[in-house]
Amino acid sequence: MVKPNILVSNDDGIEADGLYKLVLELKKFANVYVSAPHRQQSAVGHSITIYYPLRAFEYRKHGESFGMAVEGTPADAVKLGVLFLYKDVKFDLVVSGINHGANTAINIIYSGTVSAATEGTTLDIPSIAVSAASYEKVDFDYPAEVTAKIIKDILVNKGIKLHPKTLLNINIPSVPKEEIKGIKITKQGRSNWIDDFEVRSDPNGRDYYWLTGKMNILDTQDDYDVIAVKENYISITPLQYDLTDNKMINEIQDWNLKL
Amino acid sequence: MVKPNILVSNDDGIEADGLYKLVLELKKFANVYVSAPHRQQSAVGHSITIYYPLRAFEYRKHGESFGMAVEGTPADAVKLGVLFLYKDVKFDLVVSGINHGANTAINIIYSGTVSAATEGTTLDIPSIAVSAASYEKVDFDYPAEVTAKIIKDILVNKGIKLHPKTLLNINIPSVPKEEIKGIKITKQGRSNWIDDFEVRSDPNGRDYYWLTGKMNILDTQDDYDVIAVKENYISITPLQYDLTDNKMINEIQDWNLKL
Repeated sequence: MVKPNILVSNDDGIEADGLYKLVLELKKFANVYVSAPHRQQSAVGHSITIYYPLRAFEYRKHGESFGMAVEGTPADAVKLGVLFLYKDVKFDLVVSGINHGANTAINIIYSGTVSAATEGTTLDIPSIAVSAASYEKVDFDYPAEVTAKIIKDILVNKGIKLHPKTLLNINIPSVPKEEIKGIKITKQGRSNWIDDFEVRSDPNGRDYYWLTGKMNILDTQDDYDVIAVKENYISITPLQYDLTDNKMINEIQDWNLKL
Repeated sequence: MVKPNILVSNDDGIEADGLYKLVLELKKFANVYVSAPHRQQSAVGHSITIYYPLRAFEYRKHGESFGMAVEGTPADAVKLGVLFLYKDVKFDLVVSGINHGANTAINIIYSGTVSAATEGTTLDIPSIAVSAASYEKVDFDYPAEVTAKIIKDILVNKGIKLHPKTLLNINIPSVPKEEIKGIKITKQGRSNWIDDFEVRSDPNGRDYYWLTGKMNILDTQDDYDVIAVKENYISITPLQYDLTDNKMINEIQDWNLKL
């Protein structure tokens, strides 16, 4: 059997435990290449660096080469990894994660983790984003193990030929393994944030503003990512980046706008 | 008649000519409030600042208060503008632009201009992103005039009640006014970039990488944004931020993935 070639990236940075554990599990059945931001990126959305050049350096762990650290965003790391750093490799999959914190509902649009996977699909490589749904300390052992199992099932055991534009957004509940109820294929939830800004003054008396907020759960059924995770299912949501609101097209045409 | 309240932002920064000309035109029929990044942001995607606090200061132009400059991303500027800086205003519309350069097809996912408008819709305010489709020097007089006309037609003349989640992405061809053929309601194109990295060495002999690329036009019909603009139509595309790839859901369910 030919081993699949997998590029791993993330937004928590190349030193993150979630990425490391995932790489160890994937190496059991795949050729794994790492191209990840050199340090933590957060809520970077789908940014790329065009005004400055990128740099990359080898990152070593336990005395061995672990991968390439890219001084840029998650999307930069994937683009540079696929097109330059590992340009002789034909990748079967890009995997981004495992992120520390859920990427469900509205959080998806701000997510660097999802962005790295989206960048994979812009390069016509099937991609997966994986997040462990907790902001507390996470033990990544089980999330890494189950993610690798899902990927191996898809690519190797079932031999599913993923479409080059397929992006799977996986969210894993942060509960003991025994409490996970199964896998649900879900839709992106409509839940959002109720945001606010907290005003503080610096030592020179100038104001600055901290974004604060709490999640506003608008979804009720477990075919939405937020609820599936809340009910201890692993949520898998297929995503794509055509943002056209097709149902509005006829309505806007009826407005009959003229120059 | 009650004047509509419009928040204007952008990603080229509060000093940009495209924003200034647009504000002047909108002021003819609306109450205009400006909250824009203090300096140029580019390809920032839908990023928000959560690890650092935001700051904002009054930006003056020709001896008068022009608006608030936010030390953050386009999405930050809209969020802070709506929730804090102008929190007593009930906004009818967020307008982001006028950007210098098209935001069509795949560029939409990297666009700070579209991101500011997306942030408006996350806050349940109808939003419009506007771009002048040229990277050459742009004369923003006509784009500003026609954008204001379209907005006035929608909000005032036709009294259309926009849905709070409606995002219109407008791209204006950069040709003399007489050559504009009309308005087309379009879909986001599938055209993408063929990217590459150019390697250079710094004076210390270390490599760095510049992203280069050329647009790969995959669309052929003028109901796609890229082609409409190319054929000298003003393109208006309704966008939304539910990224679910609904047509994949049944297929993935059939994979029958198990823990």
